[in-house]
Amino acid sequence: MAKLTHFNEQGRAQMVDISRKEESVRVAIALSSIKVNKEIYEEIKNGTNKKGDVLSVAQVAGIMAAKQTSNIIPMCHPISLTGVNISFDYNVDNEADQYEITIQAEVKTKGSTGVEMEALTAVSATALTIYDMCKAVDKNMIIGPTMLMKKTGGKSGDFLR
Amino acid sequence: MAKLTHFNEQGRAQMVDISRKEESVRVAIALSSIKVNKEIYEEIKNGTNKKGDVLSVAQVAGIMAAKQTSNIIPMCHPISLTGVNISFDYNVDNEADQYEITIQAEVKTKGSTGVEMEALTAVSATALTIYDMCKAVDKNMIIGPTMLMKKTGGKSGDFLR
Amino acid sequence: MAKLTHFNEQGRAQMVDISRKEESVRVAIALSSIKVNKEIYEEIKNGTNKKGDVLSVAQVAGIMAAKQTSNIIPMCHPISLTGVNISFDYNVDNEADQYEITIQAEVKTKGSTGVEMEALTAVSATALTIYDMCKAVDKNMIIGPTMLMKKTGGKSGDFLR
Amino acid sequence: MAKLTHFNEQGRAQMVDISRKEESVRVAIALSSIKVNKEIYEEIKNGTNKKGDVLSVAQVAGIMAAKQTSNIIPMCHPISLTGVNISFDYNVDNEADQYEITIQAEVKTKGSTGVEMEALTAVSATALTIYDMCKAVDKNMIIGPTMLMKKTGGKSGDFLR
Amino acid sequence: MAKLTHFNEQGRAQMVDISRKEESVRVAIALSSIKVNKEIYEEIKNGTNKKGDVLSVAQVAGIMAAKQTSNIIPMCHPISLTGVNISFDYNVDNEADQYEITIQAEVKTKGSTGVEMEALTAVSATALTIYDMCKAVDKNMIIGPTMLMKKTGGKSGDFLR
Amino acid sequence: MAKLTHFNEQGRAQMVDISRKEESVRVAIALSSIKVNKEIYEEIKNGTNKKGDVLSVAQVAGIMAAKQTSNIIPMCHPISLTGVNISFDYNVDNEADQYEITIQAEVKTKGSTGVEMEALTAVSATALTIYDMCKAVDKNMIIGPTMLMKKTGGKSGDFLR
Repeated sequence: MAKLTHFNEQGRAQMVDISRKEESVRVAIALSSIKVNKEIYEEIKNGTNKKGDVLSVAQVAGIMAAKQTSNIIPMCHPISLTGVNISFDYNVDNEADQYEITIQAEVKTKGSTGVEMEALTAVSATALTIYDMCKAVDKNMIIGPTMLMKKTGGKSGDFLR
Repeated sequence: MAKLTHFNEQGRAQMVDISRKEESVRVAIALSSIKVNKEIYEEIKNGTNKKGDVLSVAQVAGIMAAKQTSNIIPMCHPISLTGVNISFDYNVDNEADQYEITIQAEVKTKGSTGVEMEALTAVSATALTIYDMCKAVDKNMIIGPTMLMKKTGGKSGDFLR
Repeated sequence: MAKLTHFNEQGRAQMVDISRKEESVRVAIALSSIKVNKEIYEEIKNGTNKKGDVLSVAQVAGIMAAKQTSNIIPMCHPISLTGVNISFDYNVDNEADQYEITIQAEVKTKGSTGVEMEALTAVSATALTIYDMCKAVDKNMIIGPTMLMKKTGGKSGDFLR
Repeated sequence: MAKLTHFNEQGRAQMVDISRKEESVRVAIALSSIKVNKEIYEEIKNGTNKKGDVLSVAQVAGIMAAKQTSNIIPMCHPISLTGVNISFDYNVDNEADQYEITIQAEVKTKGSTGVEMEALTAVSATALTIYDMCKAVDKNMIIGPTMLMKKTGGKSGDFLR
Repeated sequence: MAKLTHFNEQGRAQMVDISRKEESVRVAIALSSIKVNKEIYEEIKNGTNKKGDVLSVAQVAGIMAAKQTSNIIPMCHPISLTGVNISFDYNVDNEADQYEITIQAEVKTKGSTGVEMEALTAVSATALTIYDMCKAVDKNMIIGPTMLMKKTGGKSGDFLR
Repeated sequence: MAKLTHFNEQGRAQMVDISRKEESVRVAIALSSIKVNKEIYEEIKNGTNKKGDVLSVAQVAGIMAAKQTSNIIPMCHPISLTGVNISFDYNVDNEADQYEITIQAEVKTKGSTGVEMEALTAVSATALTIYDMCKAVDKNMIIGPTMLMKKTGGKSGDFLR
């Protein structure tokens, strides 16, 4: 059975040693979403043509959170990210009265460990910021599912959902 | 139509003025979850009887993230949290081979604004940390849905999902 | 002669004791600016009608920096800000080929000490972010002068430039 | 037997609820020290008459660390410190060739919980910074013992070592 | 016309991809200043012969802010700085009763992107700290102009004002 | 006489230039301890068989603090840590009624400067967290002595206490 790698000989959590791993370009793409009501959906959609729209604030939050990942996730290695790109899409079913904003983050580094956590943290912070800026209208919004879509680079092999 | 409150007269994002709001005890409860495979589920479940288990690291991450909320969510007011409590539960369907760990965070403050974002940030960071510590075994884990369950205190009224 | 207040009996820097100061609503307004060339000026001006414009990123940076002030300025007291509002204006002299974006930040708190440093930090971070996002076009941009415009609340009296 | 208060009903760590505790002025004084060799002792002692001396950098580190306490100590409540004062003394035994710099931090707040951890964190960061700035000369320096000397304010009563 | 590089295909802000850029030693020098009145000028000038002087605190602030640049400027890449050096000079015109402290920061890295923003952030934080420590005497101090003086290393060529 | 390296030509503190130093794998091991009373000793010792024990929270604190070292110690270079491992031991003298928990941190990097400060910061934060979680029972706990035990890698040679 595969072993959880984050524990030391005393059975306690550790930041695993990656000193001897090769540096390579690594990319990870994560996906999240937020389900909103029609009113919020329209405010956000219309806002994207205006300065200071909800998504542009959320996107800055996502990029900054990616850089903070190793301060948020205890066993995460600090990594010098070389690129973060967040994009949005809409998933609307007017008949079912369902409105969803999807959030994708692509994170890159040139280093000794992958950036899955940075991509997942970026989409999470982006979704949380959308929630924050729209919660005065409706608190029923639902964030996620949040998942890894793709990962390339590194010895453990690529991942594609 | 309700208006998004986070925009100023120039139409740009602002941290809204709460200087004149009354201080009161405010509580928010948020819920998230992470779907894992059977192997991870058993490692985590068994680990909870050992020192340094996955959930105890994830829980520390959640509590510390709650305190960092206003640095992660751009328009969030800095708040002096007076309590954070994270608890876990299991939701297992052996026949369907589905294993889910649910995460609940209860956050309290005595202040001029609510702590919904702190509770949502806490469960998100907790789930992300579980993902991080188990991703060497399987990267298909899915985080969320993440949502607000309850909110009390403050003039805007209580919320109960 | 007035004395610098940030030094203790050993002549060393201290965070001065404000435990006995009254809480009141306090407001500070600071001003900065950035001189840019015509090309950047037009990119920024046009960008304000698009999503993800330079000023909207800069503004988020300013608001988040206001919250980080006590971590950037060593002797600054940590304060729970109750509001931050950043606005922009243009100051153009076409004949002299001079283009300037002015940045104003209004910061509020309900506390025992003023928010001058938070307002000054907010406009500084906003200007630095504009520089960052436009430096690929021209590195000759000049930030400032940066100054306090107004301060109200607290026992030391109001300030108006 | 007294119970550790930082655990919830599931037996997991929590930030304990202080929402109902009274606000009062609270003070804590902590002490640490660093044993250095004669050469470092003289460099530091002489440096205190110059700009940019070791102790003045160490002191800034201590004050800033006090403000970061709740980000360093997981179950610590975030507190708005109202004053931090760090002072130094020398403890020299020429015959025994022993040189010690003692570090005292006095931290104040007006809040619902004490500032013992802030004072202990301040002296620790101060000592670590002295170590950092002198380690090129000698790495044998020893930090501590580090302890709480005094605590006043709050319902649990005063503490005096 | 040169294009602003910080925007993705959706027209939204991104942290640009530098994964394929070569590592090299890069240096940036920035300049700022603060205009003060005669009283503050003399306090600061005299203080530089004492422990815990204003400039030594300001300098620590500048160095620490340089390390925080990527957390303050949203689209800035996190960089492992290899050196930061801040120096001061005086610019006095007794007849015109004008007193100015100039601040220069030299920042170095060995990496894939330049350190202009780190140098500009360092001088800004240094100036803000001087303001903070002297504002009890006079709030009319003016910070800046702040500008890049020199940049070497990297493919985009050197810059010299 | 060896010279303190952290001062520039103006006699002020600087982050020394390491741009030209070779990258190599570097390891540092630091040691600290905390003296507790019998009651706390038994609570901690028994807790290590339970979820959410004191030491597992303290350990997470130590690992996260290691990553924050360059934000706590002003002249410390930011370093991408490649591994952090914290372990505990007990040192008990029942007759003398003395109970001590020893804390060891091993930190690794692949970089241009050593990780002594990261190891020392890790054990300090771990000890402070134990203090925090047990202080409701007894405030007489004593932290330290804290010291470097071993250092390998880099041109300045190895260190072994």
